[in-house]
Amino acid sequence: MRRVAVAGASGYAGGELLRLLLGHPEVEIGALTGASNAGQRLGTLQPHLLPLAERVLEETTIEVLSGHDVVFLALPHGQSGAIAEALPEGTVVIDCGADFRLVDAGEWERFYGSPHAGTWPYGLPELPGNRERLMGATKIAVPGCYPTVSSLTLAPAVAAGLVDNDVVVVAASGTSGAGKAAKAHLLGSETAGNVSAYGVGGVHRHTPEITQNLSALTEGTVTVSFTPLLVPMPRGILATCTAKLRPGVTAEQVREVYEKAYATEQFVHLLPEGTWPQTKAVTGSNAVHLQVTVDEAAGRLVAVGAVDNLTKGTAGAAVQCMNLALGLDEAQGLSTIGLAP
Amino acid sequence: MRRVAVAGASGYAGGELLRLLLGHPEVEIGALTGASNAGQRLGTLQPHLLPLAERVLEETTIEVLSGHDVVFLALPHGQSGAIAEALPEGTVVIDCGADFRLVDAGEWERFYGSPHAGTWPYGLPELPGNRERLMGATKIAVPGCYPTVSSLTLAPAVAAGLVDNDVVVVAASGTSGAGKAAKAHLLGSETAGNVSAYGVGGVHRHTPEITQNLSALTEGTVTVSFTPLLVPMPRGILATCTAKLRPGVTAEQVREVYEKAYATEQFVHLLPEGTWPQTKAVTGSNAVHLQVTVDEAAGRLVAVGAVDNLTKGTAGAAVQCMNLALGLDEAQGLSTIGLAP
Amino acid sequence: MRRVAVAGASGYAGGELLRLLLGHPEVEIGALTGASNAGQRLGTLQPHLLPLAERVLEETTIEVLSGHDVVFLALPHGQSGAIAEALPEGTVVIDCGADFRLVDAGEWERFYGSPHAGTWPYGLPELPGNRERLMGATKIAVPGCYPTVSSLTLAPAVAAGLVDNDVVVVAASGTSGAGKAAKAHLLGSETAGNVSAYGVGGVHRHTPEITQNLSALTEGTVTVSFTPLLVPMPRGILATCTAKLRPGVTAEQVREVYEKAYATEQFVHLLPEGTWPQTKAVTGSNAVHLQVTVDEAAGRLVAVGAVDNLTKGTAGAAVQCMNLALGLDEAQGLSTIGLAP
Amino acid sequence: MRRVAVAGASGYAGGELLRLLLGHPEVEIGALTGASNAGQRLGTLQPHLLPLAERVLEETTIEVLSGHDVVFLALPHGQSGAIAEALPEGTVVIDCGADFRLVDAGEWERFYGSPHAGTWPYGLPELPGNRERLMGATKIAVPGCYPTVSSLTLAPAVAAGLVDNDVVVVAASGTSGAGKAAKAHLLGSETAGNVSAYGVGGVHRHTPEITQNLSALTEGTVTVSFTPLLVPMPRGILATCTAKLRPGVTAEQVREVYEKAYATEQFVHLLPEGTWPQTKAVTGSNAVHLQVTVDEAAGRLVAVGAVDNLTKGTAGAAVQCMNLALGLDEAQGLSTIGLAP
Repeated sequence: MRRVAVAGASGYAGGELLRLLLGHPEVEIGALTGASNAGQRLGTLQPHLLPLAERVLEETTIEVLSGHDVVFLALPHGQSGAIAEALPEGTVVIDCGADFRLVDAGEWERFYGSPHAGTWPYGLPELPGNRERLMGATKIAVPGCYPTVSSLTLAPAVAAGLVDNDVVVVAASGTSGAGKAAKAHLLGSETAGNVSAYGVGGVHRHTPEITQNLSALTEGTVTVSFTPLLVPMPRGILATCTAKLRPGVTAEQVREVYEKAYATEQFVHLLPEGTWPQTKAVTGSNAVHLQVTVDEAAGRLVAVGAVDNLTKGTAGAAVQCMNLALGLDEAQGLSTIGLAP
Repeated sequence: MRRVAVAGASGYAGGELLRLLLGHPEVEIGALTGASNAGQRLGTLQPHLLPLAERVLEETTIEVLSGHDVVFLALPHGQSGAIAEALPEGTVVIDCGADFRLVDAGEWERFYGSPHAGTWPYGLPELPGNRERLMGATKIAVPGCYPTVSSLTLAPAVAAGLVDNDVVVVAASGTSGAGKAAKAHLLGSETAGNVSAYGVGGVHRHTPEITQNLSALTEGTVTVSFTPLLVPMPRGILATCTAKLRPGVTAEQVREVYEKAYATEQFVHLLPEGTWPQTKAVTGSNAVHLQVTVDEAAGRLVAVGAVDNLTKGTAGAAVQCMNLALGLDEAQGLSTIGLAP
Repeated sequence: MRRVAVAGASGYAGGELLRLLLGHPEVEIGALTGASNAGQRLGTLQPHLLPLAERVLEETTIEVLSGHDVVFLALPHGQSGAIAEALPEGTVVIDCGADFRLVDAGEWERFYGSPHAGTWPYGLPELPGNRERLMGATKIAVPGCYPTVSSLTLAPAVAAGLVDNDVVVVAASGTSGAGKAAKAHLLGSETAGNVSAYGVGGVHRHTPEITQNLSALTEGTVTVSFTPLLVPMPRGILATCTAKLRPGVTAEQVREVYEKAYATEQFVHLLPEGTWPQTKAVTGSNAVHLQVTVDEAAGRLVAVGAVDNLTKGTAGAAVQCMNLALGLDEAQGLSTIGLAP
Repeated sequence: MRRVAVAGASGYAGGELLRLLLGHPEVEIGALTGASNAGQRLGTLQPHLLPLAERVLEETTIEVLSGHDVVFLALPHGQSGAIAEALPEGTVVIDCGADFRLVDAGEWERFYGSPHAGTWPYGLPELPGNRERLMGATKIAVPGCYPTVSSLTLAPAVAAGLVDNDVVVVAASGTSGAGKAAKAHLLGSETAGNVSAYGVGGVHRHTPEITQNLSALTEGTVTVSFTPLLVPMPRGILATCTAKLRPGVTAEQVREVYEKAYATEQFVHLLPEGTWPQTKAVTGSNAVHLQVTVDEAAGRLVAVGAVDNLTKGTAGAAVQCMNLALGLDEAQGLSTIGLAP
């Protein structure tokens, strides 16, 4: 049994981590920490986690987090680096925040407005080269939710050169992606019956992360037009991705490329032709559902992917990374079964 | 490993059964049957059940259902009896339908308008006397979703004589309780932003079932005023239950009675004082969350219970009953962890 | 044209007032004030009120509010009294807050924990005696949303002595009733897919108001067991109300009493037999939809009423009261048409 | 007063037409017809339209529809032509269906699979040239909901040559766009918490309509990649539209073009810079809310538009067209005020 701690256990990412870790056969849940919520019962903060109801959140300190095999960080941006450095050597630190995702310090500073903390192995094992870097790693940066689904939805086409490198992503997300901090525009009275766009025009912080992922797959420069939408549901992201097809590319080729790309990936599921992803089918699941087609009149590939932003989009990916880091079965404690309806 | 079949695998109860059975360590999933959906891939009908996506529904026949240790029936009312009789002796038959829930043939006929099929052991092990009858049983009637939560919420008070026997239950349910058949008033466009009452005035078919459960706990006659509400969410029931307190009963006594009643029940959770149940905390969980208080000005006990209508309210109860019937650990394959947010 | 001001124009009650006032033919919209939002464009705060988008909120001061024929107060409890006193004599002040609703100072103090400010004419003209008091009034207390629907749903039965005086009300409300202040438990991620009870056991502040309204209709003491539910929708309340029928009362008598009670009320609509209210049919409408039945087995009357908590439940009532105060047609600027689906 | 009839009064478009017509000062509502619903009370079918509750739907026959100044057709595709021809000359016929929207018979046949019925003046007065054709017209084709918002969101950029002609539209729609016919995948249990894409790859029938509208504004050929999404809300469309900017085009130019394009349009509202449209702000309103920006890194214009699919997207447009046809004020009976929250 590996002893794991979760820093930031009162938020949505922390709650989902605990939900998954409770079902993980190789894990024992150690310290749970919070910031303003330290001292409160978890039963009050996360009433769905009944087996942990009587656990009390501690302060997020090195002392509390030390003595664990794995420490998950689900903290606001900017806090992970110092904690990771101070923890005992050999501790596996898995950061659900953005601090260590970007390679390019300039991009980091442009989008986050603070000095670049560095770059850790990127926790999306389904992209070429990543899995190897994650096996045995002790520092891991869990990808953003939008980059996870957008990158996986487009990667095969970009890597195979089926499309030009000017891609458009419009991704509709449930509200939990915006976190649990109380904000008036996220009240249920506001989000119900409402769809809105935000971070439009390339200013959303996940833009450089998608660009980085896709650029690693091709020689040319990839440009990404990324528009996130807020839709009235708690969980899930549906990403609609399109790019111009290179001349002569056929629908059969496209399908073949996608089939081959994910043939051995247990969490990426290309749906049968004619069936399109829906977020509900992946609620609470670590699976990504994909479909792709060719719009001949527009000369475009259109690919659509669905994930649960909290599971494969955050906490599920974190557990998958932990499994790789510890040399466990990559799918341990994870499921491809959603909760519906 | 026990081999189990699910008749009615394309509906909501069937889908939830499969979701739970996929995680049950002692079970191998055998035949899956449907009516009009026979011949279709399960991946089309239940896209969230990825591991079963390539399974094809068969016709609901005795031949198909034979050769299993357990057969779950999630069929329209009136079909279970003939199937149960024709299956090989010793097959454990667990009926998610209403046919065998009521003891009183007259009540059955009044509410269902057809001849009474009989009475099977009633699958609510948390009510006095039931667990014993379910252990080793080969025919089990899974309770209705409203009766499950209403009965568990009121049982301690009625059994202990804390209240008079004139109880009022108003229970708000998600739409999945109404099933997957296409009906205009259940369209998302209709249910969104909408709360309505239905079956008002004692005409809902779950009324006699609640009455039967509570009457078994006391000498006197129990009358139940039951009003179900349809609320805009897919899953969950919140039952608000009230009855006049007997003279002199105190809040402390009430709490003590509830604590004692469920002290050893792993799926019934009395929340800490001051915390009230919410359906989201039990989504996908087999737990029932309860709270109770005394309204001194009105002289009433008010108890509130939450369940997931598809899990503890149907499919979870069915799995719990299977475990009891087969002599397995009662909680095998079940969880008290919900999926939130 | 009457010049009207709205204090608290950035909240939900204020927004709904403005929506209605924009369509009122006898009204010119004057000052709009806010607290922390003073200085902001209304277009930012209430983007649905396009004709007022360029209006800027002012501070809530006597100076700003003076010089209007009517001043609507949509303020936190405790602020209305001082403002009303300081406004020029003759100004019609219509308070959407609770300060002046209760007659009994003791009840006020028990539920609100502050000194009683007084009692103003109660803005529910459909209850006996109220309309007369509202005609020409210069100070009006708009009822609470729950009391409006609960009182109207039960009043005919209580007034006619059809039921005993021990009534039970379970009322499911959309989230806008909880206001626009940012609170974590009201985030869309929390409210979606969730029903919960709150203020259980007679502690909700609308309890004494319902009791007061019903007690005025009968000789005996009325006790009210009131349980509010929060349901995942922005607007609307459905109140399920029940009480023991007096011996010998028939369904026909009940229907007759209800028909007669509201025969001349243009905003209270008794639905045809067999049809039950739904909140969506009254969204944005000033109508109350009612239905009533007799549960013979339980010996109870069950009545269900639906309102829009922001329209007839608050702002619509306020406009209706203004019309009465000013001697206008009571229905001016109000509608019985809902917005659906 | 003009006497108007509505054929198809039981559906969502019909209901919204009646909601608007009830508030139109120059209109008297005549015959209301239905298909399978003929003979039913409107109160049962459209309970939100209280003033018409006692009206009974008639059969959709020429006899019933004759004798009106205006006949609105909200019928399944393929039925409008025959009715329009048989109605008395001079009757203004306003078709909410698709039959007469497309100019190109080949496109019609490719997308609808039936012979082309013809082309009527296209009811989107805000596009160049259309208003003049609608004034005094007696046959009008109301645009599709997606084409309305997509065309208005992109038109200024395309007409001014700011972008290349390869446009991408991803439009998220509420479920009422799919109509009121009972279909399992549109049940509330399915749509809640769910976002899905459909008609992907250029196969949705609104694709050629968007292409037609935009192509009319420019010399070159416009290609449209259109992906509709179904989101969990009853009403509203948010369209995210993007195209490559022509070299040298600046953000200032873009804004200027949009401001100028709609400066005199009362129903098209360009939001202040930095504010993005949300569907809730236009619920029940005839307004279109727009915003546009330049993504310099991606070299793209991104424009977002919001409409209520049933109001400006269908019934509001129909009323606007009626006003133009009859020589009334174009905004009569219409509003730019939404219902929120």
